[in-house]
Amino acid sequence: MTKFELIPTEIVRVNNGKITYENDMLSVEEPLEIVLSYFYEGHWLEKKISVVMRTPGFDRNLAIGFLYTEGIIRDFSDVDEINFIENSDLENGLSSNQVVCKLKSHVQFDLQSVERHFYTTSSCGVCGKSSIDAVKIACPIIVPQNKWKLPIQTVYQFNDSMISNQKNFNFSGGIHASALFNLSGEFLYLREDVGRHNALDKVIGEALEKNIVPLFDVVLFLSGRVSFELIQKASMAGIRMICAVGAPSSLAVDLAQELDITLVGFLRGNRFNVYSAPGRIDFNI
Amino acid sequence: MTKFELIPTEIVRVNNGKITYENDMLSVEEPLEIVLSYFYEGHWLEKKISVVMRTPGFDRNLAIGFLYTEGIIRDFSDVDEINFIENSDLENGLSSNQVVCKLKSHVQFDLQSVERHFYTTSSCGVCGKSSIDAVKIACPIIVPQNKWKLPIQTVYQFNDSMISNQKNFNFSGGIHASALFNLSGEFLYLREDVGRHNALDKVIGEALEKNIVPLFDVVLFLSGRVSFELIQKASMAGIRMICAVGAPSSLAVDLAQELDITLVGFLRGNRFNVYSAPGRIDFNI
Repeated sequence: MTKFELIPTEIVRVNNGKITYENDMLSVEEPLEIVLSYFYEGHWLEKKISVVMRTPGFDRNLAIGFLYTEGIIRDFSDVDEINFIENSDLENGLSSNQVVCKLKSHVQFDLQSVERHFYTTSSCGVCGKSSIDAVKIACPIIVPQNKWKLPIQTVYQFNDSMISNQKNFNFSGGIHASALFNLSGEFLYLREDVGRHNALDKVIGEALEKNIVPLFDVVLFLSGRVSFELIQKASMAGIRMICAVGAPSSLAVDLAQELDITLVGFLRGNRFNVYSAPGRIDFNI
Repeated sequence: MTKFELIPTEIVRVNNGKITYENDMLSVEEPLEIVLSYFYEGHWLEKKISVVMRTPGFDRNLAIGFLYTEGIIRDFSDVDEINFIENSDLENGLSSNQVVCKLKSHVQFDLQSVERHFYTTSSCGVCGKSSIDAVKIACPIIVPQNKWKLPIQTVYQFNDSMISNQKNFNFSGGIHASALFNLSGEFLYLREDVGRHNALDKVIGEALEKNIVPLFDVVLFLSGRVSFELIQKASMAGIRMICAVGAPSSLAVDLAQELDITLVGFLRGNRFNVYSAPGRIDFNI
């Protein structure tokens, strides 16, 4: 089983007006489906208990740690076997994305609690490819073909504008923000939350009440890193360009490329990287 | 309904040997239970679809945005009413932690998909207080009464040691890490993941296989911010001291205080803040 924690990608690197095409490394993000195999009333049963979006590698650690911190096992001796399932449709280099955790037959746990408490995210398939297909099907918006171009100087200004509007971060240093800008680079509004997906849901919720969805002609600014889930949520609202202070994950870049969403990362002043659809940025200064 | 996005707390601030007792601000983290009210086969039904750990404020935005980005509503006109439920056991200042989203009677959605896809985290009650009680009940470990003390110089060294051992971050800049150190400040091992809760589960999973749980006599180092969920997972493994590069949330601090876990935040070289149980640090230099 091949595992990649890092994967190369081609980016456009912008550094104060200097444009270069470079290779960069992304942290890999892929779903792992955790299946519990347990003995109940004389039968061996299997139940999918979670899909976690994780970086492949040490998946055995992850499965065992998850079972423990979620209260299913009391110690390692409760585990009989941890088996990774090779998917028949695995693409080249994709790691196994399903693990079956077999408990010893005597192990008892609160099945109702497991059913009530575990989760998958809304768009997870068992591999990244099917996740992306699921998003494409779920997304109700048909995006326009014509494209605008944003001057590079406008992108440079987002960070300063964001900081001056992000009131809570300035006090606690511990909160994520999502903001919308128009194509003139003017700040529209932002929402802050300890959960970055919540901050984005709040921005989109406000836009829905304002009746300005689909958000084809705005730029979404994110204060942190970019996961698959954030691109998925943004795409649901028709957002075509996302700028983030942090790094994107591999699956975030894959989805942005697939959906032709412009994805800018590591935006700090006059420096940034473009991971997908650079055509919406006018690099001529 | 009172909402707080920030809440004051008392900290011990350490700056290169200078110790001061100060007030600081925390970003509030609290659960919000989202209940869907919908018309199905002639009846109005209610279903709890998610508990999100969020910062109070703009909860109406959050509820509407969540329904939309998760594919339950197609636009705002699908929503009939958004009602916040006042909890009878609300403590002073605690905001409403339950929202009922009533859809218009004609709205159809994939109920099976909702059941399959939504989540609560494992320890969420409807308010922070009951969440904390749930953790205390779930945690199987009885912690020892005797305490060790860690010299302040040992805490200063964690950051440098972490950086030199965190291989993937150095390449991609986009990954979280969890690491264990012993009480002499020696690095034991780390795990990296795009999801910070996964990185911690991997660390704990490895410890379980190594048969070194409960982890009473180690320090857990986290590369980012500290949420309630991370403290909860660490407490399950008996961890008594957590140092983080980023800020903790309000509920993370509440839980750490309740469980007598030493919580250090904003650890950067010779500077850090202590949010709970400072007695495990020897401030005499």
